[in-house]
Amino acid sequence: MAEREGEPQSGEDRLIARYFRPLATEPGALGLLDDAATITPPPGSDVVLKTDAVVAGVHFFPDDPPDMIAKKALRVNLSDLAAKGASPAGFLLSLVLPQALGADWLEAFARGLGEDARAYRCPLMGGDTDRTPGPLTISIAAFGIVPSGTMVRRSGARPGDRVVVTGTIGDAALGLLMRRDPDTATRWRLDPRQRDHLLERYLLPQPRNALAQALRLHAAAAMDVSDGLAGDLGKLCAVSGVGAEIEVARVPLSDAARKALGSDPTLVETALTGGDDYEVVATVPAGARDALMAAAQAAGVALTEIGVVRADRPGAHFLDHGGKALMFKKTSFSHF
Amino acid sequence: MAEREGEPQSGEDRLIARYFRPLATEPGALGLLDDAATITPPPGSDVVLKTDAVVAGVHFFPDDPPDMIAKKALRVNLSDLAAKGASPAGFLLSLVLPQALGADWLEAFARGLGEDARAYRCPLMGGDTDRTPGPLTISIAAFGIVPSGTMVRRSGARPGDRVVVTGTIGDAALGLLMRRDPDTATRWRLDPRQRDHLLERYLLPQPRNALAQALRLHAAAAMDVSDGLAGDLGKLCAVSGVGAEIEVARVPLSDAARKALGSDPTLVETALTGGDDYEVVATVPAGARDALMAAAQAAGVALTEIGVVRADRPGAHFLDHGGKALMFKKTSFSHF
Repeated sequence: MAEREGEPQSGEDRLIARYFRPLATEPGALGLLDDAATITPPPGSDVVLKTDAVVAGVHFFPDDPPDMIAKKALRVNLSDLAAKGASPAGFLLSLVLPQALGADWLEAFARGLGEDARAYRCPLMGGDTDRTPGPLTISIAAFGIVPSGTMVRRSGARPGDRVVVTGTIGDAALGLLMRRDPDTATRWRLDPRQRDHLLERYLLPQPRNALAQALRLHAAAAMDVSDGLAGDLGKLCAVSGVGAEIEVARVPLSDAARKALGSDPTLVETALTGGDDYEVVATVPAGARDALMAAAQAAGVALTEIGVVRADRPGAHFLDHGGKALMFKKTSFSHF
Repeated sequence: MAEREGEPQSGEDRLIARYFRPLATEPGALGLLDDAATITPPPGSDVVLKTDAVVAGVHFFPDDPPDMIAKKALRVNLSDLAAKGASPAGFLLSLVLPQALGADWLEAFARGLGEDARAYRCPLMGGDTDRTPGPLTISIAAFGIVPSGTMVRRSGARPGDRVVVTGTIGDAALGLLMRRDPDTATRWRLDPRQRDHLLERYLLPQPRNALAQALRLHAAAAMDVSDGLAGDLGKLCAVSGVGAEIEVARVPLSDAARKALGSDPTLVETALTGGDDYEVVATVPAGARDALMAAAQAAGVALTEIGVVRADRPGAHFLDHGGKALMFKKTSFSHF
């Protein structure tokens, strides 16, 4: 926006113009010069709505690089759109900033956010900036589009469905333990590459948006794994009114996680219940399994079959080599 | 949701089920049992997107009644939908809670939120709850519906348009001064009813959603007045590439504000620049003025003509009885 004589630009206006207007590439965002934005969904489509907030010291470390914080804040929402089979359409940003974060921080934050907005085709549509005496708090509301009635729900799992999961499980929870206690890398006998892999997986989720369409076409039920595979799959089973039997040995682990669990077998609980995976767990009718696997391969997303949906025993059960169900102290992460 | 054997309900799940599920009355909210919600906009419509956050100690007092905090958090967003001519369609809630707020607080908060969700027909579609070591922070993303292309923008003001404003201006800014220094009520010689009026206007905005359709049909430009009439009208003028001349004597004041300004004439600056009004300022072509006024009367919303849009002098100018423009130290509230 050109400066005009008599134009009363506040500090907030300048901040938005400088750092965030370049991200508002959609016409409906009105260059962030209005109070609201518009999206026009294609005829016959539903708008998928999701919000997730991240708080410094709770969901990330206050000294994490600002571009990584921005990307994590957006990606935790993109991960939900992916699991629901939705194409990203845009997002609103509510940025609540401590006084200490100045221009350099904001510039890096906006740069990271812009990189992901472009990479995931999820443009900034609008937002709000405020000051807080507390920690940095970022709430994002993300919007996706699906053909009407096709959002993949938690409630669609049926007995006989195969249970599949993307990527690898447990990396981020192990990475978080390492952030809190750097000695763990030595105790787990990780090499530097393995250590960096786990740290990176905590710092920066890899949402599986490339798989969204395949999930929409083939999956019976899906959700993103953000609070631990055991608890999240348990929630999916509860809403679907079914149970699931998972073979722990089939749960995909990275080299680094495998090494850590080899050094300390009790870490299997951390891996399965720790959260921050931002993978997708889905169930797929047996007859659609091969089609989903092929579509995942075509999309470049690793997808692993880990178990089966059953009618006769509610809950998600993780079976060891002997077929005995693991018992967890707590199946998922909860702030409450 | 019925409790089922093996169902892993976390503390967060229980909190949502107990306090917020009753507010999720739309089928697309899926009873808050999924990761995301859907809305299906009517064919030929745009979805209007807005987010605003409120922070304890910044936008409200931490000891304000929780039901009033909830209503304010929602209403600051509803006010934008009103100004844009949109019908509310729902909202997402991101609730970031300090440890100190327990069950009683949450119950009252959810009760207030539910009352307004019903009153404004703006149902809860989904949300996220988190803990924070900092102050209570509430981000709401609200969605509205307009026929495609009809959202009322800031940019439509044209020379010759009349400038109109809803309700009364300055009450909340004066109420905030009174919250900070109770002696002001005495200095301003307010009676108890006047004092309560100003305090109430700060505590609880009265968004003008009843006027939304009339604005959509008749207004050339509109925005909600949240950061002060002078600054907000200045922003509208800047985006429209016009100026505005406002007669200060025509700006609608409550009895209480009139009394305060009578006791201390310098308070006119507080009234015009202080913010938190959550009224609507709009411009209307001269030929549509009577139709808008009639529609406002039919909707039960007070609407006052206060000035005119001009081509020859950018900015919003507030003229005193002698036709001289008031100069303000700062035209609008800004956190930055």
